[in-house]
Amino acid sequence: MDGWQANMILDDGGDLTHWVYKKYPNVFKKIRGIVEESVTGVHRLYQLSKAGKLCVPAMNVNDSVTKQKFDNLYCCRESILDGLKRTTDVMFGGKQVVVCGYGEVGKGCCAALKALGAIVYITEIDPICALQACMDGFRVVKLSEVIRQVDVVITCTGNKNVVTREHLDRMKNSCIVCNMGHSNTEIDVTSLRTPELTWERVRSQVDHVIWPDGKRVVLLAEGRLLNLSCSTVPTFVLSITATTQALALIELYNAPEGRYKQDVYLLPKKMDEYVASLHLPSFDAHLTELTDDQAKYLGLNKNGPFKPNYYRY
Amino acid sequence: MDGWQANMILDDGGDLTHWVYKKYPNVFKKIRGIVEESVTGVHRLYQLSKAGKLCVPAMNVNDSVTKQKFDNLYCCRESILDGLKRTTDVMFGGKQVVVCGYGEVGKGCCAALKALGAIVYITEIDPICALQACMDGFRVVKLSEVIRQVDVVITCTGNKNVVTREHLDRMKNSCIVCNMGHSNTEIDVTSLRTPELTWERVRSQVDHVIWPDGKRVVLLAEGRLLNLSCSTVPTFVLSITATTQALALIELYNAPEGRYKQDVYLLPKKMDEYVASLHLPSFDAHLTELTDDQAKYLGLNKNGPFKPNYYRY
Amino acid sequence: MDGWQANMILDDGGDLTHWVYKKYPNVFKKIRGIVEESVTGVHRLYQLSKAGKLCVPAMNVNDSVTKQKFDNLYCCRESILDGLKRTTDVMFGGKQVVVCGYGEVGKGCCAALKALGAIVYITEIDPICALQACMDGFRVVKLSEVIRQVDVVITCTGNKNVVTREHLDRMKNSCIVCNMGHSNTEIDVTSLRTPELTWERVRSQVDHVIWPDGKRVVLLAEGRLLNLSCSTVPTFVLSITATTQALALIELYNAPEGRYKQDVYLLPKKMDEYVASLHLPSFDAHLTELTDDQAKYLGLNKNGPFKPNYYRY
Amino acid sequence: MDGWQANMILDDGGDLTHWVYKKYPNVFKKIRGIVEESVTGVHRLYQLSKAGKLCVPAMNVNDSVTKQKFDNLYCCRESILDGLKRTTDVMFGGKQVVVCGYGEVGKGCCAALKALGAIVYITEIDPICALQACMDGFRVVKLSEVIRQVDVVITCTGNKNVVTREHLDRMKNSCIVCNMGHSNTEIDVTSLRTPELTWERVRSQVDHVIWPDGKRVVLLAEGRLLNLSCSTVPTFVLSITATTQALALIELYNAPEGRYKQDVYLLPKKMDEYVASLHLPSFDAHLTELTDDQAKYLGLNKNGPFKPNYYRY
Repeated sequence: MDGWQANMILDDGGDLTHWVYKKYPNVFKKIRGIVEESVTGVHRLYQLSKAGKLCVPAMNVNDSVTKQKFDNLYCCRESILDGLKRTTDVMFGGKQVVVCGYGEVGKGCCAALKALGAIVYITEIDPICALQACMDGFRVVKLSEVIRQVDVVITCTGNKNVVTREHLDRMKNSCIVCNMGHSNTEIDVTSLRTPELTWERVRSQVDHVIWPDGKRVVLLAEGRLLNLSCSTVPTFVLSITATTQALALIELYNAPEGRYKQDVYLLPKKMDEYVASLHLPSFDAHLTELTDDQAKYLGLNKNGPFKPNYYRY
Repeated sequence: MDGWQANMILDDGGDLTHWVYKKYPNVFKKIRGIVEESVTGVHRLYQLSKAGKLCVPAMNVNDSVTKQKFDNLYCCRESILDGLKRTTDVMFGGKQVVVCGYGEVGKGCCAALKALGAIVYITEIDPICALQACMDGFRVVKLSEVIRQVDVVITCTGNKNVVTREHLDRMKNSCIVCNMGHSNTEIDVTSLRTPELTWERVRSQVDHVIWPDGKRVVLLAEGRLLNLSCSTVPTFVLSITATTQALALIELYNAPEGRYKQDVYLLPKKMDEYVASLHLPSFDAHLTELTDDQAKYLGLNKNGPFKPNYYRY
Repeated sequence: MDGWQANMILDDGGDLTHWVYKKYPNVFKKIRGIVEESVTGVHRLYQLSKAGKLCVPAMNVNDSVTKQKFDNLYCCRESILDGLKRTTDVMFGGKQVVVCGYGEVGKGCCAALKALGAIVYITEIDPICALQACMDGFRVVKLSEVIRQVDVVITCTGNKNVVTREHLDRMKNSCIVCNMGHSNTEIDVTSLRTPELTWERVRSQVDHVIWPDGKRVVLLAEGRLLNLSCSTVPTFVLSITATTQALALIELYNAPEGRYKQDVYLLPKKMDEYVASLHLPSFDAHLTELTDDQAKYLGLNKNGPFKPNYYRY
Repeated sequence: MDGWQANMILDDGGDLTHWVYKKYPNVFKKIRGIVEESVTGVHRLYQLSKAGKLCVPAMNVNDSVTKQKFDNLYCCRESILDGLKRTTDVMFGGKQVVVCGYGEVGKGCCAALKALGAIVYITEIDPICALQACMDGFRVVKLSEVIRQVDVVITCTGNKNVVTREHLDRMKNSCIVCNMGHSNTEIDVTSLRTPELTWERVRSQVDHVIWPDGKRVVLLAEGRLLNLSCSTVPTFVLSITATTQALALIELYNAPEGRYKQDVYLLPKKMDEYVASLHLPSFDAHLTELTDDQAKYLGLNKNGPFKPNYYRY
């Protein structure tokens, strides 16, 4: 690739961006923008920006509406069931489950489990999400209140040490523990690597951790992400993500000078809407068009964007 | 009230604000802020602000998370059923219903109707909301595709002339038509006031509009808001709204000089979270507190706010 | 009506049948059969039959499939919401509700309340129904375990004294108590008519019963049937019942001698299927017909009946 | 096993029974009963009985309530999702699915798919089941009405040639076809073994059948049972079935002479209730006991059975 020079960075996690910064800062002279799709990578970009070190425009596609909803809510609604079934064959009906965290991932997991007859409890730190959980029909509890009675524990917080050794000690025999959040820190798996506990690998991705009294806790994927380790990601979700990335690259590359500064931007809403519209035909969905009169009444362009930036969907 | 002077404006719709502007502009010298809770009033404030005519800080409490979710999603999920039952005694099971608009109000209506066995179709102009409707299990259609077959038509768009005379002409006998959106313009009721159609008031808030061939369309509340005209608003929802307003008034009044300029602000997220937290005890919900270590890991204050401003809930 | 003579009895509760037995036994000479639609009336007929006193054929239409499902499951799924809303304006989201009895009525109530975001507990005496409740996602408890925490108590047992004074004493302030079962005996209302409790009629069908410490229990319809007292019965349900009765009358009247003896019969399945088929067009439902080959394979007549008598639907 | 002699037959499908009849009829001299758990085996027993050839009592445990509900409704509610995911990774949200047959299996499949955001259509031959489908929120159609538009076709009829070559010819590209019914006859797979169609095995249990124009239909398990071929049966379901069988064996063996004749019997309801009660502790479910007074009021024994034989659950 003699003479080839990168003109855009498409990153997932921020490692590539970091590496270019450290090793080949000159490359940035030709780079017209960074597109980043992960929570972590976005976080690193915002820190660069705050520190005044971001030298090209960056686009946070992680927080585009379509990407968020499909990667989290819609995808996890299906993959929690798939991941649990493939690893444990557990029957969902009548099972007591505690889900830690009622963000998009938690909402997806809870909706699916409730629909299949599980009894779901929620833990939350954020009162707004907690109130949503109440209105959606879930009891909001502290983990310690229900840890003795539940059949399944699922973490979706993005936090660390949400399930501690103390919790694990109090779980009942055969309790299943898994993580749907964004890292492998939510369950304190390290605390289980102690001499008095025996680990038994019963099949791929499934360990029994055995207490001296014979109690077994079923740990999935050693606390790593269940949806990545033990279920599949539907092509439809990949298509949404890839489309979002491609559009962001095109936008940054084609943008007239001055539209984007050395900062982190959300995907323009009109593009977000475009990603969605490209995926409607596979559902045979038919959009309604505004009449001129209606567009005027609403103060909208007939082609969108249709919502203010703070709209929550 | 000799010598009494207003120091805050609490408005709903923007009429009071408008009136003070027109008649008593001097009052604004003592006013420390405006709190506005309606879509319309907020719209007027943003226009004032754009025109550079807003002379005090204003707070848009309409778009606070808790207020939005309770006034729209959660409240409409219940009031659509209540409003239809009280006026028509319709059985929901097996009914075909088209809901125009899949915003928070539409989402609430659809969830409730689907849960009670209705078959629901959606019309949408926004591809993102349309995609959500698909993923939630609803066919997205143009109104004309299903208008001949549906038993109930519900508008939740905020738009005008969504249901036209042409649609009304094609509805089947006994079709129920009602409006859950934000004004009385969504159904073109005026078009029904023509000599060839007979109106028959069958009970309070219920008119039969009768075509020459005997076909009857059941029009509720003459196209005004069903949830306000024909059902009740639970005290819990009122409490959420009133709390939000009170906190906004306190915030604007107590804010140190310079925190708010002559502009329109969203309720600070921390207050939004506070509104939610005040309502958790009635559900016996128990929040989890972050440890110091966890707060540091997440980069959050233990007391919130817990989410970035663009978080969608 | 000179010379007119009854040739059939259409009864609901068995009082008419009882009265004819006592006062005008001769009328039975011309009577070709009795059609009875209530639980109580059917019970009385089976007792007559056991005692060898039934002198004409009788048809138990109460237990026809369509009648049962519509009178109980489908109707109550809607009327529980309607009855509670009209009397109390309670918001369902997040409310803790205990439903006593998980028969068809209980199943209907629970499905609706769960769908609208309530957290529902079940009490049951029958292990099969209890297991169904588990698989449908409800905790099965004794009433005393949850009586202190619930916001609403609903009885659907057909039993008596299911909610006792002791339970009522332990309810929290503002707890709503109502009955969806088949009589007014399920809640021990008599036990509340004691001097230390004050009754306050707050609106039609709604009493506050006030304890000396100020606690109020909200009693609906004085413990009588909520669905009859405080909500409406959709015409669709009435149509199902009336069709069932009419067909039963015709069947008994037209039956060739010997088809029915002096006993109690369930509606022939083919008629039950006919009742259903008459109501399908209002849903624009299209039945599939068996080919000759398929009918032969299944050992069925192409026109039904399609199921063995013990089929449970 | 010198001298050992069989004293009971535990059969699944009727083959063992048939074989003993043919080859070792003398064995029946010592046999005290047959317990049969499958639809087919039960059918064969009823035919033997009709023909007067059944020489020992037989128990139909296939139609016990708990066995039916767990083998069909509850198990299929989970295995339809599991089977489709493991074979195709299909995303359920927004998919159009037609389910042929709305018996217990169909009800389970539909409930799960609807809950995960699929749009489900039903075909039915029985008007009662069709009416249930309507009330549960499904459109009842003929297969030909929707065959061009659906993404998934699922058969649950027990019938043959429900999906014909003509239907297969009209399916859209990538349509998934599978069978959840009781045999491999529901989809006319033989009709696909013609020269103009190409079969491509894409992975275990998954064939692409390719039309000359390139259209592919995704056939699962070559039309055999999806739930047996491509998903697992939870141990809980096996436990229910095994308990039912064991109790039936004990009952037939211990029954005093004369209780059972040379006929086919349903499991006594009290045993059915006992099977359920043995499985309640795993849900931590607490049954309520009748008081003496209540038992008398209801005319029931405190220990059951609690329902008449025709009760439908």
